Amino acid sequence: MSQTSAGVRVAVDAMGGDNGPGVVVAGAVQATRTLGIRALVVGPEDVVTRELRILGAAGEALEVVHAHDVVGMAEKVSRSTLKKRSSIQVAVELVRDGKADAFFSAGNTAACWTIAKLVLGTLEEVDRPALAAVVPNVAGRTLLLDVGANAHCKARQLEEFAVMGDVYARAVLHVANPRIGLMSMGEEEGKGTELTREVHEVLKGSHLNFVGNVEGRDVFNGKVDVIVMDGFTGNVVLKASESLAESLFALLREELSRTPFRKLWAWLSRYAYRAIKKRTDAAEYGGAPLLGVRGCCVIGHGSSNAFAVKHGVRAAAEFFASGVNGRIESELRALAPRRQEAGTA
Amino acid sequence: MSQTSAGVRVAVDAMGGDNGPGVVVAGAVQATRTLGIRALVVGPEDVVTRELRILGAAGEALEVVHAHDVVGMAEKVSRSTLKKRSSIQVAVELVRDGKADAFFSAGNTAACWTIAKLVLGTLEEVDRPALAAVVPNVAGRTLLLDVGANAHCKARQLEEFAVMGDVYARAVLHVANPRIGLMSMGEEEGKGTELTREVHEVLKGSHLNFVGNVEGRDVFNGKVDVIVMDGFTGNVVLKASESLAESLFALLREELSRTPFRKLWAWLSRYAYRAIKKRTDAAEYGGAPLLGVRGCCVIGHGSSNAFAVKHGVRAAAEFFASGVNGRIESELRALAPRRQEAGTA
Repeated sequence: MSQTSAGVRVAVDAMGGDNGPGVVVAGAVQATRTLGIRALVVGPEDVVTRELRILGAAGEALEVVHAHDVVGMAEKVSRSTLKKRSSIQVAVELVRDGKADAFFSAGNTAACWTIAKLVLGTLEEVDRPALAAVVPNVAGRTLLLDVGANAHCKARQLEEFAVMGDVYARAVLHVANPRIGLMSMGEEEGKGTELTREVHEVLKGSHLNFVGNVEGRDVFNGKVDVIVMDGFTGNVVLKASESLAESLFALLREELSRTPFRKLWAWLSRYAYRAIKKRTDAAEYGGAPLLGVRGCCVIGHGSSNAFAVKHGVRAAAEFFASGVNGRIESELRALAPRRQEAGTA
Repeated sequence: MSQTSAGVRVAVDAMGGDNGPGVVVAGAVQATRTLGIRALVVGPEDVVTRELRILGAAGEALEVVHAHDVVGMAEKVSRSTLKKRSSIQVAVELVRDGKADAFFSAGNTAACWTIAKLVLGTLEEVDRPALAAVVPNVAGRTLLLDVGANAHCKARQLEEFAVMGDVYARAVLHVANPRIGLMSMGEEEGKGTELTREVHEVLKGSHLNFVGNVEGRDVFNGKVDVIVMDGFTGNVVLKASESLAESLFALLREELSRTPFRKLWAWLSRYAYRAIKKRTDAAEYGGAPLLGVRGCCVIGHGSSNAFAVKHGVRAAAEFFASGVNGRIESELRALAPRRQEAGTA
């Protein structure tokens, strides 16, 4: 995998994330040193240069690209956000202008999403791009899409999500024949909404490895590799799951420090917790790709540490190197006649 | 609380749940012995009588009501399901005929739901009843509704869910002034779908303690007491959360038994896990009420043990004793003129 990403130029938004530019720059430096990625670190030049100096990486194969403004993590995306020469804006423009191959940010998701769509446009044949998320399951990982870009979806769009998810899972998650599920309220074909019934029919007749309707429980049990759903449902289920996992770990810490004896046991069993944290840590999985946009953009979690940033930068590079976007276009092009006939185009 | 449920007659479906009638009957016996509830245990007479004999409870204040048929846990609800003289059917009819005050089952949710709605009908002023779920949060518990009865909802229905959730949270969960949230994709008023924007407006103008839009993360962080949403979203988020919690506990067990040392530590820290299990266990919270039906029906988790059944029977009794249904009707009646004017009625 690391071979494919060597030499790929990734524009990294130095100013995104809850942990400050030091963490992002450290992640970019790690990606450069260990994976041979060529990072273009975008942000106020003095800030980025200072961080590189602190890391002793000032002379390395990283390019610093100046961007004066910053989009705040909680900033609501407005006209003024989009007028800024922000690190997100400048980094995405590097992709548009062919000066970078891919984009990574752990910053404001809505801002990244909006700017990427506006600056890069959508792929040929794609009606609505989607935000995907990679979550760990008991056996590996599940790609969920859409998780928030499109609150309301049509059948045609969910079909596109299935195709885009299939291509991404093959190319970047290295799943040989991704099992695709459609999120619904019950496994039977007739269950769910009018939309899910329509999409079920469409996917059943497709070339995809469609295993049928799935339920909420199938997000984490490894039954499928890709789950398609509208962005409202995806957003709620993703945020609820993140919050539940955090709450359970917090509860565990609290209970394990309630008495001195428990504290001792907690200390003794710390390796087990670390192993679990590692197995369930989103950081390993490299962030959320924007699928359907004319460019390779990956958004990391705001809480990303340097390790997570490194893997996010890697995912963005692999997204580019594996030719995901070209494959999405050619697959959707192949589907176009059938879709027109079926009335979903 | 236990005072209010003493003397209440609860029809208990002996044949519901994954663990067999022995567990259900044991829970009903515990509710009778410790809470003074009068259980009417419904199922094949020979089966129920044998279980009572095994428990040494044959002479106690429980009534056995014969029902010949059983609805399977995975049975799809069809015409033939509804024709059966099943334990669910007979138990619900006891409520309709005034021979029982409330109903509890840990059985097939769709069957309970369908039979209850058909046999009991809906409350005055209620358009669509909802299935609610009580989930633990870091500070207490959250009532979610709808979690699967109505895949597609109108604004008027979500408004009803908010009123019904408010009444239930006050009466049965003993929350003084329940904070009501509307599930959406972002906290800002303008975020979400057309439906959530419409409902937001309606709830903002209501007498409820409406705190605004909430997100998936707010299911478990204790920010609100009641969250209203369409049944599709609710079903997915509830099932995903259950599956995630189970996976994390399974992972913990696996990691803690990987080496003999870890096994020892796991054994030493077992009290902490039990405390967490207890704090997060749905069993403590008594199951999912059907709100808006003309009767007091509570459905427990299929995996309920005797302890969970006892608390489910208690919740059904409190549902009745606290006069939830009368309050729902009077609150919705009071809203009727305003709703008609606003065009949501």
